[in-house]
Amino acid sequence: MLVLTQGDPAGIAPEITIGAWQALRNQEPAFVFLGAPELLAGRVPVQLIEKPSQAQAVFAHAVPVIPLKLNTPAVQGQPDSRNAESIITSISEAVRLVQTDAATALITNPISKDVLKQAGFAHPGHTSYLAELCHTPGEDVMMLAGPSLRVVPVTVHVSLKTAISQLSPELIIKTARTTAYDLRHKFGITSPRIAVAGLNPHAGENGLMGTEERDIILPAIKTLQNEGLTVTGPFPPDTLFTPQARKNYDVALCMYHDQGLIPLKTLDMAEGVNVTLGLPIIRTSPDHGTAFDIAGKGIADPSSLLAAIRLASTLVHNRKTYS
Amino acid sequence: MLVLTQGDPAGIAPEITIGAWQALRNQEPAFVFLGAPELLAGRVPVQLIEKPSQAQAVFAHAVPVIPLKLNTPAVQGQPDSRNAESIITSISEAVRLVQTDAATALITNPISKDVLKQAGFAHPGHTSYLAELCHTPGEDVMMLAGPSLRVVPVTVHVSLKTAISQLSPELIIKTARTTAYDLRHKFGITSPRIAVAGLNPHAGENGLMGTEERDIILPAIKTLQNEGLTVTGPFPPDTLFTPQARKNYDVALCMYHDQGLIPLKTLDMAEGVNVTLGLPIIRTSPDHGTAFDIAGKGIADPSSLLAAIRLASTLVHNRKTYS
Repeated sequence: MLVLTQGDPAGIAPEITIGAWQALRNQEPAFVFLGAPELLAGRVPVQLIEKPSQAQAVFAHAVPVIPLKLNTPAVQGQPDSRNAESIITSISEAVRLVQTDAATALITNPISKDVLKQAGFAHPGHTSYLAELCHTPGEDVMMLAGPSLRVVPVTVHVSLKTAISQLSPELIIKTARTTAYDLRHKFGITSPRIAVAGLNPHAGENGLMGTEERDIILPAIKTLQNEGLTVTGPFPPDTLFTPQARKNYDVALCMYHDQGLIPLKTLDMAEGVNVTLGLPIIRTSPDHGTAFDIAGKGIADPSSLLAAIRLASTLVHNRKTYS
Repeated sequence: MLVLTQGDPAGIAPEITIGAWQALRNQEPAFVFLGAPELLAGRVPVQLIEKPSQAQAVFAHAVPVIPLKLNTPAVQGQPDSRNAESIITSISEAVRLVQTDAATALITNPISKDVLKQAGFAHPGHTSYLAELCHTPGEDVMMLAGPSLRVVPVTVHVSLKTAISQLSPELIIKTARTTAYDLRHKFGITSPRIAVAGLNPHAGENGLMGTEERDIILPAIKTLQNEGLTVTGPFPPDTLFTPQARKNYDVALCMYHDQGLIPLKTLDMAEGVNVTLGLPIIRTSPDHGTAFDIAGKGIADPSSLLAAIRLASTLVHNRKTYS
C-alpha cells in the first residue's frame, strides 16, 4: 500500500489529495493518507483506519486515513508553524511504515521550508530529512520525470555561481552511479543510457567558452564509461532536449537546476514528478510547492500528484521484478 | 528584394539555399543569392543577374544569383580558408546593397569562425562584423524567434561563469531597450511585454539561492518600468516557458545563452530563427551552423533558413508600417 503524507495543511495538499482520490477510486493504485482527517472530511467520504493493510478494502468508497492531530485548525492560504509538528510526524511516520514493510512507497505532499524552519526543523526540505531517516545522509539524488523526459541535476538548490563551484568529477560520478543503479532497479531499464550535458554554451566549443567540459565533465564521463556504464557527452545543452535528441537517452544528467528543470517543465509542466534516487525506499512527490496563494480556491491541479502516485506504484512493481 | 549571403561553401549553405528556393519559387518572398553560382548550378536552374531589382522576374524559374568568385573549388565537408575572401565579400556586399536600398533585408547563410579566423578575420561571427559595417558597434542584440517563443539572451557566447560576471543593470537595461524598440518597429508590437528571467533557481528565492535578482535584475526592471516599458520579473526560470506562462509576454529576456536557447530549441528546433536587433538594417539567419559533418549528404533541413527568409520579409513589411 502506498502512503501519502499530509503536507502543509494550509497549502493545496488537501485539495489535490481529494482530486487524486477521485481520479483513482475506481482504479489502481490505492493509497492511504497519513494526516488530519478534517482536512478532507465533508468534501469526500473519509474512513479512519489503523494500518495501511486496511486501506485497500476502503479505497473505492472513502479516502483511507491514518489520523494525525493538528495543533491548530488549518486555514487555507495562511501557513501556521504551530502545525509543523504534524507535518513532520506525517513524514517520519510514513517512512517508518515503509521501512517496516507496512507500506510499499512514500508519496509526499508539498511542505514549506519557511514554516518548518520557524519550528526549528533543520532540513532545507524533504529530501535531506528522508535521507537522514533512512540512515543514508548525502546519498539522495533528485530526479524529475515526465512523460517526455527524465532529468537529474548534479547540483540542485544553490545559486548558479555556487553550482559552478560545486561541480567536480567526483560529484558527477557519484550522481551518475546512483542514477544508473536506480534506473535499473526501480525503473526496470536494464542498460540505462545517460546523456551528460555540458555546462557552457555549445559545451564550451573546445575551450573557447569555458573549460569545465574538458577539466571536470569529460574526465567523469571517461571514468563512468570505464565502469561499463552507457554514458555519453558532454553535449551542447541547447540541443540536448529536442525530440530527436531525447530518443538517444533514458536520462539527461544536468549540471545545474534550471538546465534540467527548464526543459522538463517546458515540456511536461503538469505531469512532472520528483523522484528521490539513492534511498533504500521509494519516494515520489509532485513537482510543485504548497501554492499558498491559490490554496482553497478550487483551482489547484492534482495532475502532478496523480502522476507521482502512479509512478510510485510502477516503481514498486519494477523493484520486485528487477531486484 | 531580400538578399541571401553565400555562407561557407563547404557547409550545408548551398543545399539549404536550393531547398529554400524550391519551397518559395511559386510563392513570396523572392530572394537573390549573393555567391558563387557553381554551388547551385546543375542542381537547380540558376540565372545570373547584376542587381537585386532583376531578381523578382527571374525567381519563379531560376535562382537569381549575383555572382562571386571562389578562390578554390568548394568541397562539401572540407572547409578551406582560401575561400574566406568570398565568404566575407558576400556579407559586406550584401550589407552595402541593403544600406543603399538596393535590397530590403539580409539573410545570412552559416559561416565558420575557425575558417575565417585562419584567414585573419577578426570577428567572432557575423553579428559584430555586421555591427561594424553598420557603424553601430556594440549595439547588436541577438534574438531567437520561433513559432512558440521569442528569447533574447543578455549575455551570449561566453562561459557560464563569465556570463554571471558580465551581468549588470546597465547591460540588462540596454538590451531591454533595444529589444522593445525593435519589437515595436520591426515586429509591429505596439506595446511589447518583456518578461525577465531570474538568474538563479527559483529566481533566488528571496536571496536563499543567489542575490543577483535583488542586486542586479530587479533594479534594472524598475528603471525600465519607470521609462514606461511593460517589463515584469524576475521570474523563476524553470516555469517561464510553460504554455501558460508564454501567453503573458512577447519576449523573454534571458540572463545567459542556454537559459533562452534550451526552451527555444526544445520547442522550435527546426524553425528557430536568429534575428539581430539593434542594427539599422534587418538581418535574420538560420539558427544552426555550417554542419560540415552532414554537408553534401542531402539530409540538411532547410526549415530554419526558410523561416529566416519569411521572417525577414515580414519584418520588412512591418517596418514600413510601424516606423
